[in-house]
Amino acid sequence: MSEEDALAARVAEAMFERDRASKLMGMEIVEVRRGFARLALVVREEMLNGHDVCHGGYIFTLADSAFAYACNSGNHSTVALQCSISFSTSARLGDRLIATSQERVLGGRTGTYDGEVRREDGSTVALFRGTSYRLKGHIV
Amino acid sequence: MSEEDALAARVAEAMFERDRASKLMGMEIVEVRRGFARLALVVREEMLNGHDVCHGGYIFTLADSAFAYACNSGNHSTVALQCSISFSTSARLGDRLIATSQERVLGGRTGTYDGEVRREDGSTVALFRGTSYRLKGHIV
Amino acid sequence: MSEEDALAARVAEAMFERDRASKLMGMEIVEVRRGFARLALVVREEMLNGHDVCHGGYIFTLADSAFAYACNSGNHSTVALQCSISFSTSARLGDRLIATSQERVLGGRTGTYDGEVRREDGSTVALFRGTSYRLKGHIV
Amino acid sequence: MSEEDALAARVAEAMFERDRASKLMGMEIVEVRRGFARLALVVREEMLNGHDVCHGGYIFTLADSAFAYACNSGNHSTVALQCSISFSTSARLGDRLIATSQERVLGGRTGTYDGEVRREDGSTVALFRGTSYRLKGHIV
Repeated sequence: MSEEDALAARVAEAMFERDRASKLMGMEIVEVRRGFARLALVVREEMLNGHDVCHGGYIFTLADSAFAYACNSGNHSTVALQCSISFSTSARLGDRLIATSQERVLGGRTGTYDGEVRREDGSTVALFRGTSYRLKGHIV
Repeated sequence: MSEEDALAARVAEAMFERDRASKLMGMEIVEVRRGFARLALVVREEMLNGHDVCHGGYIFTLADSAFAYACNSGNHSTVALQCSISFSTSARLGDRLIATSQERVLGGRTGTYDGEVRREDGSTVALFRGTSYRLKGHIV
Repeated sequence: MSEEDALAARVAEAMFERDRASKLMGMEIVEVRRGFARLALVVREEMLNGHDVCHGGYIFTLADSAFAYACNSGNHSTVALQCSISFSTSARLGDRLIATSQERVLGGRTGTYDGEVRREDGSTVALFRGTSYRLKGHIV
Repeated sequence: MSEEDALAARVAEAMFERDRASKLMGMEIVEVRRGFARLALVVREEMLNGHDVCHGGYIFTLADSAFAYACNSGNHSTVALQCSISFSTSARLGDRLIATSQERVLGGRTGTYDGEVRREDGSTVALFRGTSYRLKGHIV
Protein backbone atom coordinates (compact mmCIF):
# COMPACT_ATOMS: atom_id res chain seq x y z
CA MET A 1 0.00 0.00 0.00
CA SER A 2 1.38 3.42 -0.96
CA GLU A 3 1.88 6.05 1.74
CA GLU A 4 -0.98 8.15 0.42
CA ASP A 5 -3.35 5.18 0.39
CA ALA A 6 -2.36 4.42 3.98
CA LEU A 7 -3.14 8.02 4.91
CA ALA A 8 -6.50 7.75 3.07
CA ALA A 9 -7.35 4.68 5.14
CA ARG A 10 -6.49 6.45 8.41
CA VAL A 11 -8.57 9.48 7.40
CA ALA A 12 -11.54 7.26 6.56
CA GLU A 13 -11.30 5.47 9.89
CA ALA A 14 -11.24 8.78 11.79
CA MET A 15 -14.16 10.16 9.75
CA PHE A 16 -16.29 7.04 10.12
CA GLU A 17 -15.72 7.02 13.90
CA ARG A 18 -17.52 10.40 14.12
CA ASP A 19 -19.96 9.91 11.22
CA ARG A 20 -23.08 8.82 13.08
CA ALA A 21 -25.27 9.24 10.00
CA SER A 22 -23.40 6.77 7.80
CA LYS A 23 -22.74 4.35 10.66
CA LEU A 24 -26.27 4.23 12.07
CA MET A 25 -27.74 3.89 8.58
CA GLY A 26 -25.76 0.66 8.33
CA MET A 27 -23.12 1.69 5.79
CA GLU A 28 -19.91 -0.30 5.54
CA ILE A 29 -16.63 1.20 4.33
CA VAL A 30 -15.40 -1.42 1.88
CA GLU A 31 -12.32 0.34 0.50
CA VAL A 32 -10.75 3.78 0.58
CA ARG A 33 -7.70 4.84 -1.43
CA ARG A 34 -6.37 8.27 -2.41
CA GLY A 35 -9.22 9.81 -4.47
CA PHE A 36 -11.45 6.75 -4.30
CA ALA A 37 -13.97 5.15 -1.97
CA ARG A 38 -16.29 2.15 -2.06
CA LEU A 39 -19.12 1.78 0.48
CA ALA A 40 -21.93 -0.75 0.91
CA LEU A 41 -25.45 -0.58 2.32
CA VAL A 42 -28.19 -3.19 2.59
CA VAL A 43 -31.72 -1.87 1.91
CA ARG A 44 -33.85 -2.30 5.00
CA GLU A 45 -37.61 -2.08 5.56
CA GLU A 46 -37.35 1.44 7.02
CA MET A 47 -35.76 2.70 3.78
CA LEU A 48 -38.76 1.88 1.58
CA ASN A 49 -41.05 4.53 0.14
CA GLY A 50 -44.68 4.35 -0.95
CA HIS A 51 -43.80 2.38 -4.12
CA ASP A 52 -42.21 -0.33 -1.92
CA VAL A 53 -38.74 0.46 -3.29
CA CYS A 54 -35.79 2.15 -1.62
CA HIS A 55 -36.32 5.90 -1.18
CA GLY A 56 -34.01 7.79 -3.53
CA GLY A 57 -32.76 9.75 -0.56
CA TYR A 58 -31.05 6.67 0.88
CA ILE A 59 -29.42 5.92 -2.47
CA PHE A 60 -28.20 9.51 -2.63
CA THR A 61 -26.97 9.36 0.96
CA LEU A 62 -24.89 6.26 0.24
CA ALA A 63 -23.40 7.86 -2.90
CA ASP A 64 -22.81 11.12 -1.03
CA SER A 65 -20.96 9.32 1.77
CA ALA A 66 -18.75 7.58 -0.80
CA PHE A 67 -18.10 11.03 -2.30
CA ALA A 68 -17.20 12.42 1.15
CA TYR A 69 -14.72 9.61 1.86
CA ALA A 70 -13.15 10.01 -1.59
CA CYS A 71 -12.81 13.81 -1.53
CA ASN A 72 -11.45 13.88 2.02
CA SER A 73 -8.97 11.06 1.35
CA GLY A 74 -6.09 13.50 0.91
CA ASN A 75 -6.60 14.64 4.54
CA HIS A 76 -7.81 18.15 3.60
CA SER A 77 -11.21 18.98 5.10
CA THR A 78 -13.48 19.05 2.08
CA VAL A 79 -17.23 19.50 1.70
CA ALA A 80 -19.84 18.91 -0.98
CA LEU A 81 -20.79 22.05 -2.87
CA GLN A 82 -23.14 20.56 -5.45
CA CYS A 83 -24.25 17.03 -6.28
CA SER A 84 -26.42 15.48 -8.93
CA ILE A 85 -27.87 12.00 -9.23
CA SER A 86 -29.55 10.15 -12.10
CA PHE A 87 -31.75 7.26 -11.07
CA SER A 88 -31.79 4.19 -13.34
CA THR A 89 -33.59 1.34 -11.66
CA SER A 90 -35.12 0.78 -8.26
CA ALA A 91 -33.39 -0.86 -5.34
CA ARG A 92 -35.45 -3.34 -3.34
CA LEU A 93 -35.65 -4.68 0.18
CA GLY A 94 -32.55 -6.74 0.94
CA ASP A 95 -30.47 -5.48 -2.01
CA ARG A 96 -26.84 -4.92 -1.05
CA LEU A 97 -25.89 -1.66 -2.77
CA ILE A 98 -22.29 -0.80 -3.60
CA ALA A 99 -21.41 2.87 -4.12
CA THR A 100 -18.11 4.04 -5.54
CA SER A 101 -16.69 7.53 -5.90
CA GLN A 102 -13.68 8.40 -8.02
CA GLU A 103 -11.87 11.72 -8.34
CA ARG A 104 -12.03 12.93 -11.94
CA VAL A 105 -10.63 16.44 -11.77
CA LEU A 106 -8.92 18.34 -8.96
CA GLY A 107 -7.87 21.95 -9.41
CA GLY A 108 -7.36 24.74 -6.93
CA ARG A 109 -9.84 24.22 -4.09
CA THR A 110 -12.50 22.42 -6.08
CA GLY A 111 -12.84 18.93 -7.50
CA THR A 112 -15.24 16.75 -9.45
CA TYR A 113 -15.99 13.18 -8.43
CA ASP A 114 -17.96 10.55 -10.33
CA GLY A 115 -19.97 7.94 -8.52
CA GLU A 116 -22.11 4.93 -9.20
CA VAL A 117 -24.48 2.90 -7.09
CA ARG A 118 -24.84 -0.70 -8.20
CA ARG A 119 -26.42 -3.88 -7.01
CA GLU A 120 -24.11 -6.80 -6.29
CA ASP A 121 -25.02 -8.27 -9.69
CA GLY A 122 -23.47 -5.15 -11.25
CA SER A 123 -26.70 -3.54 -12.46
CA THR A 124 -26.75 0.25 -12.15
CA VAL A 125 -29.11 1.87 -9.64
CA ALA A 126 -27.85 5.46 -9.98
CA LEU A 127 -25.10 7.65 -11.40
CA PHE A 128 -23.80 10.44 -9.17
CA ARG A 129 -21.53 13.43 -9.70
CA GLY A 130 -20.27 15.75 -6.98
CA THR A 131 -18.42 19.05 -6.87
CA SER A 132 -16.19 19.38 -3.81
CA TYR A 133 -14.78 22.43 -2.06
CA ARG A 134 -11.68 22.27 0.10
CA LEU A 135 -11.80 24.11 3.44
CA LYS A 136 -8.86 24.90 5.69
CA GLY A 137 -7.88 22.21 8.17
CA HIS A 138 -7.15 18.50 8.22
CA ILE A 139 -9.03 15.38 9.26
CA VAL A 140 -6.26 13.61 11.19
CA MET B 1 -59.90 24.46 -1.26
CA SER B 2 -60.05 23.76 -5.01
CA GLU B 3 -60.95 20.25 -6.19
CA GLU B 4 -57.43 19.60 -7.44
CA ASP B 5 -55.89 20.74 -4.15
CA ALA B 6 -58.27 18.40 -2.31
CA LEU B 7 -57.14 15.54 -4.57
CA ALA B 8 -53.49 16.51 -3.93
CA ALA B 9 -54.12 16.27 -0.18
CA ARG B 10 -55.72 12.81 -0.53
CA VAL B 11 -52.82 11.60 -2.68
CA ALA B 12 -50.30 12.87 -0.14
CA GLU B 13 -52.11 11.12 2.69
CA ALA B 14 -52.17 7.82 0.79
CA MET B 15 -48.50 8.14 -0.16
CA PHE B 16 -47.34 9.04 3.34
CA GLU B 17 -49.24 6.08 4.79
CA ARG B 18 -46.98 3.74 2.78
CA ASP B 19 -43.82 5.86 2.80
CA ARG B 20 -41.91 4.25 5.67
CA ALA B 21 -38.70 6.10 4.78
CA SER B 22 -40.11 9.61 5.16
CA LYS B 23 -42.26 8.68 8.15
CA LEU B 24 -39.61 6.87 10.17
CA MET B 25 -37.05 9.59 9.46
CA GLY B 26 -39.44 11.94 11.26
CA MET B 27 -40.70 14.02 8.35
CA GLU B 28 -43.92 15.94 8.68
CA ILE B 29 -46.14 16.84 5.72
CA VAL B 30 -46.90 20.51 6.35
CA GLU B 31 -48.80 21.33 3.17
CA VAL B 32 -49.56 19.77 -0.20
CA ARG B 33 -51.34 21.48 -3.06
CA ARG B 34 -51.49 20.74 -6.80
CA GLY B 35 -47.83 21.03 -7.92
CA PHE B 36 -46.52 22.05 -4.52
CA ALA B 37 -45.41 20.46 -1.26
CA ARG B 38 -43.91 21.64 2.02
CA LEU B 39 -42.34 19.17 4.47
CA ALA B 40 -40.47 19.57 7.76
CA LEU B 41 -37.76 17.58 9.53
CA VAL B 42 -35.93 18.18 12.80
CA VAL B 43 -32.20 17.30 12.71
CA ARG B 44 -31.50 14.53 15.19
CA GLU B 45 -28.24 13.18 16.64
CA GLU B 46 -28.30 10.16 14.31
CA MET B 47 -28.27 12.48 11.28
CA LEU B 48 -24.92 14.10 12.08
CA ASN B 49 -21.76 13.39 10.13
CA GLY B 50 -18.11 13.62 11.11
CA HIS B 51 -18.16 17.44 11.03
CA ASP B 52 -20.98 17.43 13.62
CA VAL B 53 -23.45 18.85 11.10
CA CYS B 54 -26.40 17.21 9.36
CA HIS B 55 -25.27 14.73 6.68
CA GLY B 56 -26.10 16.15 3.24
CA GLY B 57 -27.93 12.92 2.49
CA TYR B 58 -30.65 13.73 5.02
CA ILE B 59 -31.05 17.23 3.56
CA PHE B 60 -31.35 15.72 0.09
CA THR B 61 -33.81 13.11 1.36
CA LEU B 62 -36.09 15.77 2.81
CA ALA B 63 -35.96 17.81 -0.42
CA ASP B 64 -36.48 14.67 -2.49
CA SER B 65 -39.57 13.72 -0.47
CA ALA B 66 -41.00 17.21 -0.98
CA PHE B 67 -40.32 16.75 -4.71
CA ALA B 68 -42.10 13.36 -4.66
CA TYR B 69 -45.19 14.80 -2.95
CA ALA B 70 -45.27 17.74 -5.38
CA CYS B 71 -44.79 15.75 -8.58
CA ASN B 72 -47.33 13.08 -7.60
CA SER B 73 -49.90 15.65 -6.47
CA GLY B 74 -51.85 15.30 -9.74
CA ASN B 75 -52.47 11.62 -8.89
CA HIS B 76 -50.32 10.28 -11.74
CA SER B 77 -47.60 7.88 -10.52
CA THR B 78 -44.43 9.86 -11.07
CA VAL B 79 -40.80 9.13 -10.23
CA ALA B 80 -37.57 11.09 -9.96
CA LEU B 81 -35.35 10.77 -13.02
CA GLN B 82 -32.60 13.18 -12.07
CA CYS B 83 -32.01 15.51 -9.12
CA SER B 84 -29.40 18.06 -8.22
CA ILE B 85 -28.69 19.86 -4.97
CA SER B 86 -26.51 22.84 -4.09
CA PHE B 87 -25.50 23.07 -0.46
CA SER B 88 -25.28 26.57 1.07
CA THR B 89 -24.86 26.33 4.81
CA SER B 90 -24.83 23.53 7.33
CA ALA B 91 -27.82 22.35 9.32
CA ARG B 92 -27.21 21.62 12.99
CA LEU B 93 -28.59 19.39 15.72
CA GLY B 94 -32.11 20.51 16.60
CA ASP B 95 -32.65 22.69 13.51
CA ARG B 96 -36.18 22.36 12.12
CA LEU B 97 -35.73 22.23 8.36
CA ILE B 98 -38.49 23.22 5.96
CA ALA B 99 -38.36 21.88 2.41
CA THR B 100 -40.58 23.12 -0.39
CA SER B 101 -40.99 21.86 -3.93
CA GLN B 102 -42.76 23.76 -6.69
CA GLU B 103 -43.60 22.62 -10.22
CA ARG B 104 -41.88 24.89 -12.73
CA VAL B 105 -42.48 23.18 -16.05
CA LEU B 106 -44.65 20.22 -17.01
CA GLY B 107 -44.70 18.90 -20.55
CA GLY B 108 -45.49 15.48 -21.91
CA ARG B 109 -44.37 12.90 -19.36
CA THR B 110 -41.62 14.94 -17.77
CA GLY B 111 -41.51 17.89 -15.41
CA THR B 112 -39.08 20.15 -13.60
CA TYR B 113 -39.52 21.06 -9.93
CA ASP B 114 -37.59 23.60 -7.89
CA GLY B 115 -36.98 23.09 -4.22
CA GLU B 116 -35.42 24.79 -1.25
CA VAL B 117 -34.46 23.65 2.20
CA ARG B 118 -34.49 26.41 4.80
CA ARG B 119 -34.16 26.79 8.52
CA GLU B 120 -37.13 28.24 10.38
CA ASP B 121 -35.36 31.64 10.41
CA GLY B 122 -35.54 31.56 6.60
CA SER B 123 -31.83 31.03 5.93
CA THR B 124 -31.12 28.75 2.99
CA VAL B 125 -29.56 25.33 3.61
CA ALA B 126 -29.82 23.96 0.08
CA LEU B 127 -31.34 24.52 -3.36
CA PHE B 128 -32.74 21.50 -5.15
CA ARG B 129 -33.98 20.81 -8.67
CA GLY B 130 -35.63 17.60 -9.84
CA THR B 131 -36.67 16.14 -13.17
CA SER B 132 -39.74 13.93 -12.92
CA TYR B 133 -41.02 11.16 -15.19
CA ARG B 134 -44.66 10.12 -15.23
CA LEU B 135 -45.37 6.38 -15.23
CA LYS B 136 -48.70 4.74 -15.97
CA GLY B 137 -51.08 4.33 -13.04
CA HIS B 138 -52.51 6.43 -10.24
CA ILE B 139 -51.84 6.84 -6.53
CA VAL B 140 -55.44 6.78 -5.26
CA MET C 1 -29.61 53.84 -9.30
CA SER C 2 -27.71 52.57 -6.25
CA GLU C 3 -23.91 52.76 -6.21
CA GLU C 4 -23.56 49.00 -6.49
CA ASP C 5 -25.94 48.85 -9.44
CA ALA C 6 -23.92 51.59 -11.14
CA LEU C 7 -20.76 49.54 -10.56
CA ALA C 8 -22.52 46.45 -11.94
CA ALA C 9 -23.38 48.40 -15.11
CA ARG C 10 -19.78 49.56 -15.56
CA VAL C 11 -18.49 46.01 -15.03
CA ALA C 12 -20.94 44.66 -17.61
CA GLU C 13 -19.91 47.28 -20.14
CA ALA C 14 -16.22 46.44 -19.69
CA MET C 15 -16.89 42.70 -19.91
CA PHE C 16 -19.06 42.96 -23.00
CA GLU C 17 -16.44 45.10 -24.76
CA ARG C 18 -14.02 42.14 -24.57
CA ASP C 19 -16.59 39.32 -24.84
CA ARG C 20 -16.38 38.53 -28.56
CA ALA C 21 -18.39 35.30 -28.12
CA SER C 22 -21.53 36.95 -26.72
CA LYS C 23 -21.23 39.99 -28.98
CA LEU C 24 -20.68 38.16 -32.26
CA MET C 25 -23.45 35.70 -31.46
CA GLY C 26 -25.77 38.68 -31.40
CA MET C 27 -26.53 38.92 -27.68
CA GLU C 28 -27.83 42.15 -26.23
CA ILE C 29 -27.30 43.18 -22.60
CA VAL C 30 -30.77 44.33 -21.57
CA GLU C 31 -30.15 44.98 -17.87
CA VAL C 32 -27.49 44.33 -15.26
CA ARG C 33 -27.83 45.06 -11.56
CA ARG C 34 -25.91 43.78 -8.55
CA GLY C 35 -26.49 39.99 -8.62
CA PHE C 36 -28.77 40.06 -11.64
CA ALA C 37 -28.56 40.15 -15.43
CA ARG C 38 -30.98 40.02 -18.34
CA LEU C 39 -29.77 39.32 -21.88
CA ALA C 40 -31.54 38.83 -25.20
CA LEU C 41 -30.77 36.85 -28.35
CA VAL C 42 -32.71 36.36 -31.57
CA VAL C 43 -32.56 32.83 -33.03
CA ARG C 44 -30.91 32.93 -36.45
CA GLU C 45 -30.73 30.34 -39.25
CA GLU C 46 -27.17 29.38 -38.30
CA MET C 47 -28.34 28.37 -34.80
CA LEU C 48 -30.73 25.66 -35.99
CA ASN C 49 -30.02 21.96 -35.57
CA GLY C 50 -31.24 18.94 -37.52
CA HIS C 51 -34.75 19.18 -36.04
CA ASP C 52 -35.05 22.76 -37.38
CA VAL C 53 -35.10 24.22 -33.87
CA CYS C 54 -32.47 26.21 -32.01
CA HIS C 55 -29.51 24.03 -30.93
CA GLY C 56 -29.57 23.62 -27.15
CA GLY C 57 -26.00 24.86 -27.09
CA TYR C 58 -27.05 28.36 -28.11
CA ILE C 59 -29.75 28.41 -25.44
CA PHE C 60 -27.18 27.33 -22.87
CA THR C 61 -24.69 29.92 -24.14
CA LEU C 62 -27.22 32.73 -23.70
CA ALA C 63 -28.10 31.52 -20.17
CA ASP C 64 -24.42 31.07 -19.35
CA SER C 65 -23.61 34.62 -20.46
CA ALA C 66 -26.43 35.97 -18.28
CA PHE C 67 -24.93 33.94 -15.41
CA ALA C 68 -21.46 35.42 -16.13
CA TYR C 69 -22.78 39.00 -16.10
CA ALA C 70 -24.72 38.36 -12.88
CA CYS C 71 -21.92 36.63 -10.95
CA ASN C 72 -19.29 39.19 -11.97
CA SER C 73 -21.57 42.13 -11.18
CA GLY C 74 -19.85 42.74 -7.83
CA ASN C 75 -16.57 43.40 -9.71
CA HIS C 76 -14.81 40.27 -8.42
CA SER C 77 -13.48 38.07 -11.23
CA THR C 78 -15.72 35.03 -11.05
CA VAL C 79 -15.99 31.92 -13.22
CA ALA C 80 -18.51 29.14 -13.77
CA LEU C 81 -17.65 25.95 -11.94
CA GLN C 82 -20.70 23.88 -12.77
CA CYS C 83 -23.91 24.55 -14.67
CA SER C 84 -27.05 22.60 -15.38
CA ILE C 85 -29.89 23.24 -17.78
CA SER C 86 -33.35 21.71 -18.16
CA PHE C 87 -34.92 22.13 -21.57
CA SER C 88 -38.69 22.68 -21.69
CA THR C 89 -39.75 23.64 -25.19
CA SER C 90 -37.96 24.38 -28.42
CA ALA C 91 -36.97 27.82 -29.63
CA ARG C 92 -37.57 28.53 -33.32
CA LEU C 93 -36.13 30.70 -36.05
CA GLY C 94 -36.80 34.36 -35.27
CA ASP C 95 -37.73 33.85 -31.60
CA ARG C 96 -36.33 36.59 -29.37
CA LEU C 97 -35.07 34.79 -26.28
CA ILE C 98 -34.70 36.55 -22.94
CA ALA C 99 -32.35 35.03 -20.37
CA THR C 100 -32.19 36.14 -16.76
CA SER C 101 -29.79 35.15 -14.00
CA GLN C 102 -30.35 35.90 -10.33
CA GLU C 103 -28.02 35.32 -7.39
CA ARG C 104 -29.62 32.93 -4.93
CA VAL C 105 -26.86 32.18 -2.46
CA LEU C 106 -23.41 33.67 -2.01
CA GLY C 107 -21.03 32.33 0.61
CA GLY C 108 -17.27 32.37 0.80
CA ARG C 109 -15.91 32.12 -2.73
CA THR C 110 -18.82 30.26 -4.25
CA GLY C 111 -22.34 31.21 -5.27
CA THR C 112 -25.48 29.74 -6.79
CA TYR C 113 -27.40 31.54 -9.52
CA ASP C 114 -30.78 30.64 -11.00
CA GLY C 115 -31.60 31.39 -14.58
CA GLU C 116 -34.42 31.12 -17.05
CA VAL C 117 -34.65 31.45 -20.80
CA ARG C 118 -38.05 32.57 -22.03
CA ARG C 119 -39.64 33.66 -25.26
CA GLU C 120 -41.05 37.18 -25.39
CA ASP C 121 -44.53 35.76 -24.76
CA GLY C 122 -43.21 34.53 -21.40
CA SER C 123 -43.18 30.80 -22.20
CA THR C 124 -40.24 28.91 -20.70
CA VAL C 125 -37.57 27.51 -22.99
CA ALA C 126 -35.11 26.38 -20.32
CA LEU C 127 -34.26 26.55 -16.63
CA PHE C 128 -30.60 27.03 -15.73
CA ARG C 129 -28.60 26.85 -12.49
CA GLY C 130 -24.95 27.77 -12.12
CA THR C 131 -22.34 27.42 -9.41
CA SER C 132 -19.78 30.23 -9.45
CA TYR C 133 -16.26 30.44 -8.09
CA ARG C 134 -14.60 33.74 -7.26
CA LEU C 135 -10.99 34.17 -8.37
CA LYS C 136 -8.62 36.90 -7.27
CA GLY C 137 -8.74 40.17 -9.20
CA HIS C 138 -11.30 42.65 -10.42
CA ILE C 139 -12.99 43.42 -13.73
CA VAL C 140 -12.70 47.23 -13.69
CA MET D 1 -18.35 -2.72 -38.69
CA SER D 2 -21.46 -4.17 -37.04
CA GLU D 3 -24.87 -3.49 -38.57
CA GLU D 4 -25.87 -1.19 -35.72
CA ASP D 5 -22.66 0.82 -36.01
CA ALA D 6 -23.30 1.17 -39.75
CA LEU D 7 -26.80 2.45 -38.97
CA ALA D 8 -25.35 4.86 -36.40
CA ALA D 9 -22.99 6.25 -39.06
CA ARG D 10 -25.85 6.74 -41.55
CA VAL D 11 -27.95 8.48 -38.86
CA ALA D 12 -25.07 10.81 -37.99
CA GLU D 13 -24.53 11.69 -41.64
CA ALA D 14 -28.22 12.52 -42.10
CA MET D 15 -28.32 14.56 -38.88
CA PHE D 16 -25.15 16.51 -39.67
CA GLU D 17 -26.44 17.36 -43.14
CA ARG D 18 -29.31 19.30 -41.51
CA ASP D 19 -27.48 20.48 -38.38
CA ARG D 20 -26.48 24.01 -39.43
CA ALA D 21 -25.49 24.95 -35.86
CA SER D 22 -22.81 22.24 -35.45
CA LYS D 23 -21.62 22.53 -39.04
CA LEU D 24 -21.29 26.31 -39.18
CA MET D 25 -19.60 26.40 -35.79
CA GLY D 26 -16.89 24.27 -37.37
CA MET D 27 -17.51 20.94 -35.65
CA GLU D 28 -16.19 17.77 -37.17
CA ILE D 29 -17.79 14.36 -36.61
CA VAL D 30 -14.79 12.17 -35.84
CA GLU D 31 -16.55 8.92 -34.98
CA VAL D 32 -20.06 7.69 -34.28
CA ARG D 33 -20.96 4.19 -33.14
CA ARG D 34 -24.08 2.79 -31.47
CA GLY D 35 -24.32 4.76 -28.18
CA PHE D 36 -21.12 6.71 -28.73
CA ALA D 37 -19.91 9.83 -30.53
CA ARG D 38 -16.67 11.78 -30.81
CA LEU D 39 -16.62 15.30 -32.24
CA ALA D 40 -13.90 17.91 -32.64
CA LEU D 41 -13.85 21.71 -32.68
CA VAL D 42 -11.02 24.21 -32.98
CA VAL D 43 -11.35 27.31 -30.78
CA ARG D 44 -11.56 30.40 -32.97
CA GLU D 45 -11.26 34.12 -32.14
CA GLU D 46 -15.04 34.60 -32.24
CA MET D 47 -15.46 32.01 -29.44
CA LEU D 48 -13.44 33.94 -26.87
CA ASN D 49 -15.00 35.70 -23.89
CA GLY D 50 -13.81 38.66 -21.83
CA HIS D 51 -11.14 36.56 -20.08
CA ASP D 52 -9.62 35.72 -23.50
CA VAL D 53 -10.56 32.06 -23.13
CA CYS D 54 -13.20 30.01 -24.92
CA HIS D 55 -16.74 30.91 -23.76
CA GLY D 56 -18.16 28.01 -21.74
CA GLY D 57 -21.16 28.04 -24.03
CA TYR D 58 -19.09 26.81 -26.97
CA ILE D 59 -17.62 24.03 -24.84
CA PHE D 60 -21.12 23.04 -23.78
CA THR D 61 -22.36 23.21 -27.37
CA LEU D 62 -19.65 20.84 -28.54
CA ALA D 63 -20.39 18.39 -25.70
CA ASP D 64 -24.13 18.72 -26.31
CA SER D 65 -23.71 17.92 -30.02
CA ALA D 66 -21.67 14.84 -29.12
CA PHE D 67 -24.51 13.87 -26.76
CA ALA D 68 -27.08 14.39 -29.56
CA TYR D 69 -25.15 12.19 -32.00
CA ALA D 70 -24.70 9.47 -29.34
CA CYS D 71 -28.31 9.42 -28.11
CA ASN D 72 -29.78 9.43 -31.62
CA SER D 73 -27.39 6.74 -32.86
CA GLY D 74 -30.05 4.04 -32.54
CA ASN D 75 -32.19 5.91 -35.11
CA HIS D 76 -34.92 6.87 -32.62
CA SER D 77 -35.55 10.63 -32.53
CA THR D 78 -34.21 11.63 -29.13
CA VAL D 79 -33.83 15.02 -27.44
CA ALA D 80 -31.93 16.41 -24.46
CA LEU D 81 -34.05 16.80 -21.35
CA GLN D 82 -31.42 17.94 -18.91
CA CYS D 83 -27.66 18.47 -19.10
CA SER D 84 -24.97 19.42 -16.66
CA ILE D 85 -21.38 20.46 -17.20
CA SER D 86 -18.43 20.86 -14.84
CA PHE D 87 -15.67 23.12 -16.10
CA SER D 88 -12.09 22.14 -15.22
CA THR D 89 -9.64 24.26 -17.15
CA SER D 90 -9.92 26.89 -19.84
CA ALA D 91 -9.66 26.26 -23.56
CA ARG D 92 -7.62 28.78 -25.55
CA LEU D 93 -7.47 30.17 -29.04
CA GLY D 94 -6.37 27.46 -31.45
CA ASP D 95 -6.98 24.51 -29.08
CA ARG D 96 -8.49 21.52 -30.88
CA LEU D 97 -11.14 20.21 -28.50
CA ILE D 98 -12.34 16.62 -28.62
CA ALA D 99 -15.73 15.81 -27.10
CA THR D 100 -16.97 12.29 -26.50
CA SER D 101 -20.35 11.05 -25.36
CA GLN D 102 -21.03 7.52 -24.16
CA GLU D 103 -24.36 5.91 -23.24
CA ARG D 104 -24.30 4.82 -19.61
CA VAL D 105 -27.86 3.78 -18.93
CA LEU D 106 -30.85 3.33 -21.23
CA GLY D 107 -34.25 2.39 -19.85
CA GLY D 108 -37.73 2.99 -21.19
CA ARG D 109 -37.71 6.30 -23.04
CA THR D 110 -34.90 7.93 -21.10
CA GLY D 111 -31.15 7.53 -21.02
CA THR D 112 -28.05 8.91 -19.34
CA TYR D 113 -24.92 9.79 -21.30
CA ASP D 114 -21.50 10.78 -19.98
CA GLY D 115 -19.29 13.14 -21.86
CA GLU D 116 -15.89 14.71 -21.69
CA VAL D 117 -14.24 17.57 -23.51
CA ARG D 118 -10.47 17.28 -23.74
CA ARG D 119 -7.60 19.02 -25.46
CA GLU D 120 -5.57 16.97 -27.89
CA ASP D 121 -2.93 16.48 -25.16
CA GLY D 122 -5.61 14.64 -23.17
CA SER D 123 -6.13 17.29 -20.46
CA THR D 124 -9.74 17.68 -19.34
CA VAL D 125 -11.62 20.87 -20.17
CA ALA D 126 -15.06 19.79 -18.96
CA LEU D 127 -17.16 16.84 -17.81
CA PHE D 128 -20.70 16.60 -19.14
CA ARG D 129 -23.74 14.47 -18.32
CA GLY D 130 -26.98 14.44 -20.25
CA THR D 131 -30.43 12.95 -19.73
CA SER D 132 -32.13 12.02 -23.00
CA TYR D 133 -35.79 11.53 -23.86
CA ARG D 134 -36.91 9.42 -26.81
CA LEU D 135 -39.66 10.86 -29.00
CA LYS D 136 -41.65 8.99 -31.63
CA GLY D 137 -40.16 8.84 -35.10
CA HIS D 138 -36.85 7.97 -36.73
CA ILE D 139 -33.96 9.92 -38.18
CA VAL D 140 -33.44 7.95 -41.40
